Amino acid sequence: MARVMNFNAGPSALPLDALERAQAELLDLNGSGMSVLEHSHRGKVYEAVHNEAVSLVKELLSVPDNYDILFLQGGASQQFAVVPMNLIQAGKSADYVLTGTWSKKAHGEAKGLGTVRVAATTEKDAKFQRIPKQSELELDPNACYAHITSNNTIFGTQWQTFPEVGNVPLVADMSSDIMWRPTDVSKFGLIYAGAQKNLGPSGVTLVIVRKDLVEGGRKDIPKIFQYRTHAAENSLYNTPPTFGIYLLRNVLAVSKQKGGLSAMEQYNRKKAGLLYAAIDSRPDFYRCPVERDSRSTMNVVFNLPTPELEAEFIAESQKKGMVGLKGHRSVGGVRASIYNACEMGWIEGLVEFMGSFKKGA
Amino acid sequence: MARVMNFNAGPSALPLDALERAQAELLDLNGSGMSVLEHSHRGKVYEAVHNEAVSLVKELLSVPDNYDILFLQGGASQQFAVVPMNLIQAGKSADYVLTGTWSKKAHGEAKGLGTVRVAATTEKDAKFQRIPKQSELELDPNACYAHITSNNTIFGTQWQTFPEVGNVPLVADMSSDIMWRPTDVSKFGLIYAGAQKNLGPSGVTLVIVRKDLVEGGRKDIPKIFQYRTHAAENSLYNTPPTFGIYLLRNVLAVSKQKGGLSAMEQYNRKKAGLLYAAIDSRPDFYRCPVERDSRSTMNVVFNLPTPELEAEFIAESQKKGMVGLKGHRSVGGVRASIYNACEMGWIEGLVEFMGSFKKGA
Repeated sequence: MARVMNFNAGPSALPLDALERAQAELLDLNGSGMSVLEHSHRGKVYEAVHNEAVSLVKELLSVPDNYDILFLQGGASQQFAVVPMNLIQAGKSADYVLTGTWSKKAHGEAKGLGTVRVAATTEKDAKFQRIPKQSELELDPNACYAHITSNNTIFGTQWQTFPEVGNVPLVADMSSDIMWRPTDVSKFGLIYAGAQKNLGPSGVTLVIVRKDLVEGGRKDIPKIFQYRTHAAENSLYNTPPTFGIYLLRNVLAVSKQKGGLSAMEQYNRKKAGLLYAAIDSRPDFYRCPVERDSRSTMNVVFNLPTPELEAEFIAESQKKGMVGLKGHRSVGGVRASIYNACEMGWIEGLVEFMGSFKKGA
Repeated sequence: MARVMNFNAGPSALPLDALERAQAELLDLNGSGMSVLEHSHRGKVYEAVHNEAVSLVKELLSVPDNYDILFLQGGASQQFAVVPMNLIQAGKSADYVLTGTWSKKAHGEAKGLGTVRVAATTEKDAKFQRIPKQSELELDPNACYAHITSNNTIFGTQWQTFPEVGNVPLVADMSSDIMWRPTDVSKFGLIYAGAQKNLGPSGVTLVIVRKDLVEGGRKDIPKIFQYRTHAAENSLYNTPPTFGIYLLRNVLAVSKQKGGLSAMEQYNRKKAGLLYAAIDSRPDFYRCPVERDSRSTMNVVFNLPTPELEAEFIAESQKKGMVGLKGHRSVGGVRASIYNACEMGWIEGLVEFMGSFKKGA
């Protein structure tokens, strides 16, 4: 079957070049006579892949030297626990900014592990349909860290400018928008991201963490959950998800080859711009519930006049080879997830369909 | 390059059929127009793969209905922490039988999480070159569980008969020999295994756990680490490592097609038998340091008269297309890891080489 237009929220589309490369060398990596899946994680062939993946993260995001780059397992959901386990010191607390389902889950897991505060939430006044303003943040200057979710897949919101948090380490779950554009890593104490949107397959978690936080992290937690354990061993303390890291390498090599994150930002802004323009051009029919300055470039959510029309829209889109446009079950509506690997042609196809759907009716 | 004879300790050889299937459908799974890597973990196409993987585990091991089958992340090393976090109740303790590096690591991680006892160790009297006898086990009848490592990759030992532990739940790290033969799961409270030897790629951890232990597990630990969280959601609480589970499905489908675990046992016993016979047939030159009734069918370790000869043996074997024969750095010597996917032809090649190496000298 021809390749579909994949708008899945994650796992999601991957660059075709990265997949084709994986397919071509799946039985024999670099003339080694075996699959990448069969290589020892302590051997030279895998080691080269692993280190190239680390280097590409460092290069694409211009990661400063005082940060460690870790490839872990368990997804962002595991980091919801591991971040506070490492970073909430006895007698101190951490701040959470609530902007949607995932930041609430992060906050919920942290609650059982230490003292946590809510520094802001847009749930009650705006049903999470906007990102809070800097002036709304009630930050604790003594917090161990302040936690945000940079992009909210379900509500379709995204931090356009990251908050100022003073000397408190800023921790961000960037699972759904990491590397969508250049990012000043030095503004963060720790960034974590499940790979399955912009980086690669599910099963790999990227953590970029300032070395002083690694060193100062708690030692009264299991060794496997201490960042220092993995930092000291270049993420080879235990067997890493080797194929996942290999494919992440393939994906990042494509990002680099396409011009890096500046080029990616241009591409992503153009894709999102086309889609929001299509929504805004039929205001009687399509409506984006998100406040304009909080709109996400990664997850574009919108509604039609009735749930019945939304269901028809989604059913029709599938017939035209579009997949994954159904909104999250908790909010309904339509959602197009248009991460880095979503192709311009898919956006054009969707925009064309949106323009013609029920137009003559 | 031609396929090498792969004796890696893990990640290790996978069945060629399973890899070829993955390669053939890597860009388009079942006519869906996308890769398995791009499918939502909540969609029907992936769901069918996921459920088939669960069913194959259940079928191949005849898992009783009062057990949950979970696909987790983090490898056995994460289970070293997660098992005691769930199962050591306040005021009680757990027993550990030490038979090598991995059981010591499991014990070390558990020590920080509750009270633990050493029920037996063969380190001091036998340098871990044998499995303890039933009569040597000093078991606590009130322990929350008794933990063993069923096969020891570094020392080349394996439990031939599992210990009797009365009413205490037996917990086994079976990472390196799960499914090498039929196993009576009902004798265990919990079995865990990193997939990267007999099941599939690294990045997936199989846990088979009795439902009463899931239900009775501690609730004062992070939600992501509670077995009940994953059992309640068929391992879809958070995004699972979808490709890893897909490939595990491919591997288990091959095991089933080849006749299941009885056929696997015959095959594995024949492979190990050939190799140990080759060692024993030149007792002046090759020596297996493991006591005869503790010899592993999965990791065959042996020594040559000198470390120099061992180095020469390993270098020569590489020229003949054999990979991974160097013993673990902590013990030296030679090690052939001959898991389920290791082919008879590779064993024959190794045996022939062993017979001729320095024969005329």
